[in-house]
Amino acid sequence: MSPHGHPKAIAAIVGAGRTKFGELWYQNPEKLLFEAGLRCIESVDNGMSRRDIQACFFGSFLYQTTNKLGLIPGYMSRELGLNIPISMTEAACASGGAALFNACIAVQSGVYDTVLVGGFEKMTDRSDKMSDDLMFAADPKEFDAGFTFPGLYATMMSRYIYEYGSGDPRCPEALAMISSKNHRHAMGNEYAHFRREFSVEDVMGSTMVADPIRLLHCSPISDGASALIVTSPETAEKLTDTPVYVVASQQASDDVSLYTRESLTSIKTTKLTMTAALAQAGLGIGDIPLAEVHDCFTIEEAIFLEDAGFYEKGEAWKGVHESYESFKGSKHIPYVNGGGELIVNPGGGLKADGHPVGATGVRQAYECFKQLRGEAGSNQVDAPLDTALCHNIGGTGGIATVHILRRDV
Amino acid sequence: MSPHGHPKAIAAIVGAGRTKFGELWYQNPEKLLFEAGLRCIESVDNGMSRRDIQACFFGSFLYQTTNKLGLIPGYMSRELGLNIPISMTEAACASGGAALFNACIAVQSGVYDTVLVGGFEKMTDRSDKMSDDLMFAADPKEFDAGFTFPGLYATMMSRYIYEYGSGDPRCPEALAMISSKNHRHAMGNEYAHFRREFSVEDVMGSTMVADPIRLLHCSPISDGASALIVTSPETAEKLTDTPVYVVASQQASDDVSLYTRESLTSIKTTKLTMTAALAQAGLGIGDIPLAEVHDCFTIEEAIFLEDAGFYEKGEAWKGVHESYESFKGSKHIPYVNGGGELIVNPGGGLKADGHPVGATGVRQAYECFKQLRGEAGSNQVDAPLDTALCHNIGGTGGIATVHILRRDV
Repeated sequence: MSPHGHPKAIAAIVGAGRTKFGELWYQNPEKLLFEAGLRCIESVDNGMSRRDIQACFFGSFLYQTTNKLGLIPGYMSRELGLNIPISMTEAACASGGAALFNACIAVQSGVYDTVLVGGFEKMTDRSDKMSDDLMFAADPKEFDAGFTFPGLYATMMSRYIYEYGSGDPRCPEALAMISSKNHRHAMGNEYAHFRREFSVEDVMGSTMVADPIRLLHCSPISDGASALIVTSPETAEKLTDTPVYVVASQQASDDVSLYTRESLTSIKTTKLTMTAALAQAGLGIGDIPLAEVHDCFTIEEAIFLEDAGFYEKGEAWKGVHESYESFKGSKHIPYVNGGGELIVNPGGGLKADGHPVGATGVRQAYECFKQLRGEAGSNQVDAPLDTALCHNIGGTGGIATVHILRRDV
Repeated sequence: MSPHGHPKAIAAIVGAGRTKFGELWYQNPEKLLFEAGLRCIESVDNGMSRRDIQACFFGSFLYQTTNKLGLIPGYMSRELGLNIPISMTEAACASGGAALFNACIAVQSGVYDTVLVGGFEKMTDRSDKMSDDLMFAADPKEFDAGFTFPGLYATMMSRYIYEYGSGDPRCPEALAMISSKNHRHAMGNEYAHFRREFSVEDVMGSTMVADPIRLLHCSPISDGASALIVTSPETAEKLTDTPVYVVASQQASDDVSLYTRESLTSIKTTKLTMTAALAQAGLGIGDIPLAEVHDCFTIEEAIFLEDAGFYEKGEAWKGVHESYESFKGSKHIPYVNGGGELIVNPGGGLKADGHPVGATGVRQAYECFKQLRGEAGSNQVDAPLDTALCHNIGGTGGIATVHILRRDV
């Protein structure tokens, strides 16, 4: 336990399910969501039926554009055979985190006791248009100037290298190591989009996308869905002997555009949500041994490590480089900082597990749930684990959600 | 007070604002939402600042398609200059009602005390594509079969006339009277898309769209936004001497398709939400003197009157016809049933006030708020008023929300 306070459960997770992430051309989005939901319901230890679900909170970004679907509550009412309240949230790449955030609010309201949370995205059928479609989550001026998301994050990566690693070859190396590490982490993840290792040299020699971002710095375009059963802490204890408690749930918003930001190397919504989440949980950053982090591009994992307070501003790349050199042979490669160790993206992160955008935030909580219960199979981290954190952002940080999960409260 | 029980406030509305509805070609959707939000904040009696808003709940349907926008939280964070949690809900034409429903859950959670609810839609720039776009809220099989929404509702209207009014010319007349009534109601509404009266003959002689639906049976394609400040009942009493309390907030979902339904002349989600809302409020249908009803096509107003229990199945058209004949000269034309009187859509409804789809559910609560406080100006209903109801649906009824508002609890 931290000296900072005592975490209090605001909700609990009792089941989690997901589909494989990848190019799933022959499945409809609503069927993917149903598959993840079904696995999730079936995973509840003491058994539950779909009829026990009192409400649903779904998240997705581009389903109207990619699949010509709207009114997801109507599609999912059909799939589930239920007439319950169903909410559909759009928050770009943080749609899944936002769905979980809304579900935590709903459980705290006491109006519902047991809810299904789901995230999904079906993108690969339309991958030739995806660079433009994703720009709905950026400023139109940025789109008109010719930016795509790799371009926006390339701006952040350039500036980061310029400010903090200029002239030092270890800085770009560290940003490639994040990719190698996450690909290594995905090797034991049967659901991952990519289970293939890439060396630091592979990453640094891959096709240039938007200088200095290369192909292997980028998370992929993926299809997939993920789901959770979220309940009140009291109900959780009836449904399983090993609930995972939500001890912090935070969301913040910021200007959709990157060019108006005070800093190109820091994300305000990450800072706000991290500070608020740690305070809500009564924990310090050193109490977090595992985090699922939004590594849409590897630069964002480095920026997170600084925004969260794990490293000082401009220091993350050094920590990444040293940690990678020390642990590159291990199953999981932790980031070491002073006395602490942090495993980031144990299942491969957005980079290797895949990034079906609406599914990602929910998939992060799925991974933390499995790791905290010791159910991550061949991908289980070796270190004993009581706390895990999920960090999901949309756009270039126009929205962020942070959740802290614990086995014990 | 009703003999059924005593309404209990779950939340309260302390401010309401809207834009004009209509063809607003020179305004961005986020500016419309900001305008409605600002008017809403300025309307709070004892004053409040945008900094008092702790979270936002927005609803819209087609903004990605019509405006190439996503991540509305990022756009609205910029407009508001706030970094608070912002949720964006999509529930087709019930997106506004769903946003209000989510806000009521949030206030009940105790996590927030004061939230902004907004709905918006910007449709007219793309009106040539709108028939297809709106079909995102229907089954793809229905789209592939050539249906548009007028076609789907024409199926319901045909079936209704066949089952309940076959051979009686008063039945189609009654379905035209609903349009004439709503256009008359909009005459005193300065924000309405159409302030122009149409006779029953005008409606029945208007251009055929999808037999038996004619142009003047249809709500228009509109642009606009509307907003509310929703608070806890305790906070409301500090912000105004005349809060309007939310005593029921319900949402239900059903299969997105029409062709699988048990009945073409009844909407299950309306029935479920109406029953649950009356039970939650402890009221009977006879306790409701005013309702904002989802008259996307006039047939849906008739079907609501039956689904809600105001008339027996198949009897609404007779009630509409008799009431219209008796009161067609009055400012508002009530529906009379036994001892009760119900004014439906006092501001003109979707038909004449307009239907910028995401704004509609919020605009309905705006109208009820103004009517309950006696602030509806030249459009104020004459009857004394303590209770009002809002009914918002999406698609052909794949989702419905019902809210009951009261001046006193």
